[in-house]
Amino acid sequence: MVDVLDALTESVGAGQVVTADADLHRYAVDQAPITDFQLPLAVVFPESVADVQSVVRACAAAGISVVPRGAGTGVSGGAHATRNSVVLSLERMDRILSINPDDETATVEPGVVNADLNDAVAPHGLMYAPDPASFRSSTIGGNVATNAGGLRCAKYGVTRDSVLALDVVLADGSLVHTGHQTFKGVAGYDLTGLFVGSEGTLGIVVGITVRLKYLPRDVHTIAAFYPSFRAAAAGVLAVGRARVQPAIMELLDGGTLAQLDELHGSDLTARGRSLLLVQTDGFGAAAEAEVVRGVLRAGGATVTTEASAEAERLVELRRHSRGSEVDDEYRVGEDVAVPRSRLVDYVAALESMAAEHQVKLKVVAHAGDGNLHPTFWIERQGTGVDPAAMERLQRALDDSITAALSMGGTITGEHGVGQYKLRWLGQEQPEPVREIQRRIKDLFDPAGILNPGKAI
Amino acid sequence: MVDVLDALTESVGAGQVVTADADLHRYAVDQAPITDFQLPLAVVFPESVADVQSVVRACAAAGISVVPRGAGTGVSGGAHATRNSVVLSLERMDRILSINPDDETATVEPGVVNADLNDAVAPHGLMYAPDPASFRSSTIGGNVATNAGGLRCAKYGVTRDSVLALDVVLADGSLVHTGHQTFKGVAGYDLTGLFVGSEGTLGIVVGITVRLKYLPRDVHTIAAFYPSFRAAAAGVLAVGRARVQPAIMELLDGGTLAQLDELHGSDLTARGRSLLLVQTDGFGAAAEAEVVRGVLRAGGATVTTEASAEAERLVELRRHSRGSEVDDEYRVGEDVAVPRSRLVDYVAALESMAAEHQVKLKVVAHAGDGNLHPTFWIERQGTGVDPAAMERLQRALDDSITAALSMGGTITGEHGVGQYKLRWLGQEQPEPVREIQRRIKDLFDPAGILNPGKAI
Repeated sequence: MVDVLDALTESVGAGQVVTADADLHRYAVDQAPITDFQLPLAVVFPESVADVQSVVRACAAAGISVVPRGAGTGVSGGAHATRNSVVLSLERMDRILSINPDDETATVEPGVVNADLNDAVAPHGLMYAPDPASFRSSTIGGNVATNAGGLRCAKYGVTRDSVLALDVVLADGSLVHTGHQTFKGVAGYDLTGLFVGSEGTLGIVVGITVRLKYLPRDVHTIAAFYPSFRAAAAGVLAVGRARVQPAIMELLDGGTLAQLDELHGSDLTARGRSLLLVQTDGFGAAAEAEVVRGVLRAGGATVTTEASAEAERLVELRRHSRGSEVDDEYRVGEDVAVPRSRLVDYVAALESMAAEHQVKLKVVAHAGDGNLHPTFWIERQGTGVDPAAMERLQRALDDSITAALSMGGTITGEHGVGQYKLRWLGQEQPEPVREIQRRIKDLFDPAGILNPGKAI
Repeated sequence: MVDVLDALTESVGAGQVVTADADLHRYAVDQAPITDFQLPLAVVFPESVADVQSVVRACAAAGISVVPRGAGTGVSGGAHATRNSVVLSLERMDRILSINPDDETATVEPGVVNADLNDAVAPHGLMYAPDPASFRSSTIGGNVATNAGGLRCAKYGVTRDSVLALDVVLADGSLVHTGHQTFKGVAGYDLTGLFVGSEGTLGIVVGITVRLKYLPRDVHTIAAFYPSFRAAAAGVLAVGRARVQPAIMELLDGGTLAQLDELHGSDLTARGRSLLLVQTDGFGAAAEAEVVRGVLRAGGATVTTEASAEAERLVELRRHSRGSEVDDEYRVGEDVAVPRSRLVDYVAALESMAAEHQVKLKVVAHAGDGNLHPTFWIERQGTGVDPAAMERLQRALDDSITAALSMGGTITGEHGVGQYKLRWLGQEQPEPVREIQRRIKDLFDPAGILNPGKAI
């Protein structure tokens, strides 16, 4: 143990290896529920690709696991430390290496914060499209590791769709480059796509070339209040049937509106039982918004022609609808996706299971792509834990995932499997598919030192 | 040999196995240059997933290779028969299994022709976006195998971006399902992406769930004639700098215009030395077209405000700019991509290498994504082959690929590696990356019976 710490310190410098108890605790977990708390042996802060290679080699030699970490904003435990591990925090590798406005690409180190990349490319009229709710703090490397989604994916795609090329340090410390600098390229197997979303279990992503999209000239936001969630979900399908592709289409239920009112002093609850927020963008934004308003009104919505500032404020509220809450054992935010046509059925199922198990429920959805975030919680009773209530909460979670799968959905739309969601993976993927994934993992990481017990 | 034919006939029925010489010749090759002509032992026409499984099992037992084939329109030799192989033609598996308008998805068998799927979903206001030039005859299965591109990829993405889920028969005859029915889904590694573009070397795709996009309400086409190719390529960057995302942006050089005039009796050559065709679509199409016309005129183009029929005709001409020509040893159509900013440099390099090697050249480009299709040819001299001329043609091809790589490009933008482009793959991918791919191939197909000698 002392030996490996010495080896790490020697290879990357003393200021890049920390072992103080407070640091170990701080870096031991991300924002996911904790099922198996482990302190790492050390936290290492590489500042270069060579540093990452040295750390991986030192850990491989010592048989110690490497848990890569971006900003630690993940909610599936992909960055939870595991037994006998070193946390590799990539936060110091935060340089934007190049911005190529005519090629509409940028190359970054993994620790670049999503919002910082967007700020840097905005003067060129460009944006990095994937926008997870954590975009102000999460890193591009973390977004790549989880194949992060966000609000505007139905129109602009998920992280994978914006990644052209990767530099990856493999389990033996070697460095490979995958993909291409061009928008199109089909030479060989899609290794880039294989690494995206693999949560650091196949290699450590140390460089990312992304495709940028155009900053929209015009943005129109529509707030449609409905008397019921069912009617609002029908509005989502109505927009689809009008063949308008919004940039954002967010669905908020009554529980979410009440929470926003409580946190921000808004009056959303007084205006409806459910809110559908639609944002159109680009050259056709005004015409699209006009069509959207028409179909939503026809479906029974109260559509306010928001002043731009007010509409933007609602979208901002939505982006922060998780508020300052962090999930804990009493409150779990879920992430499932169902085919769009099943949104209504799925939310009805959620409501009945919340009633059955006597747990609280609120739901927000990236409705454009059928990606829902139900949150289940139980009230704390004094200081003690109520085992029966915890049991009910777990049953509600299990039921919510089983229901999503029964409707042709997935156990995770955009958060990743990490450590937390592993227990449900077998319900979605039959053994032969899991076995293929295990063999791919073995191929890349035969000793199993890269983020073990995650993703597959 | 007789044994395996018996086994095949027994497993799928006599009408599904052909061995007549004319059939063997017809199915021995796709439209790529032929470097190693081989007749298959038989051509098998499965009509169901179970048929494919039976054929793969029979071939595996006999140690015979399986070469899957869609419509045979590929131009990289991915469907060329290899020694001791059976060609598995999926053309009879041509059913559209479901269209889900609210989910905006469809599930098809691999033999469904691209245009037929588009015809079937159009009444719902939907389209299947990837549009290779061969869309009227090529199949979705073949498009998936090659990760086919097309004209409107810069806006709508390549095949991979439209594929949600796959059913795949593996080398042992077992069937697996990958991916998800939802737009978003991040459970496990991206096996779907790994199969897309793997050219039948990892498994036989027998079912495909695709995401559909909205048929645009409005389409505007702009034809911009330029005095030089250089000026036209500058126009591509100017449209990008105006941050307009066209659906189509096609660049045609003087040689291509002359050929079109010859084939179709048009007068394109009289109107300019190079043509940039831009199509905008969607709710903002008119406004976008107005911006495009402005920036192109400012760059020296003669922009005709085409009547819709005339503009559409030019795009149709472009779609068929390969005409009825099929590449042979005297004429080779290439497929490379470079970063958009290098379009001008690359075409200048092409022109100088054509002059140096005394070969003819014409170039078309999907300019929006930097994907170029230069065609090199030599005139036939009587009936004999001129070895020196053939040598010059090969040198021009080699140089064109080396030049693309030196500009950060790729040896294949959208056609795939197949058999034909294998000889250049090592120039793009260093040995460690190729070794990873070989090991993935071994993992899926340890006996090497699935389309050997292709793709990697």
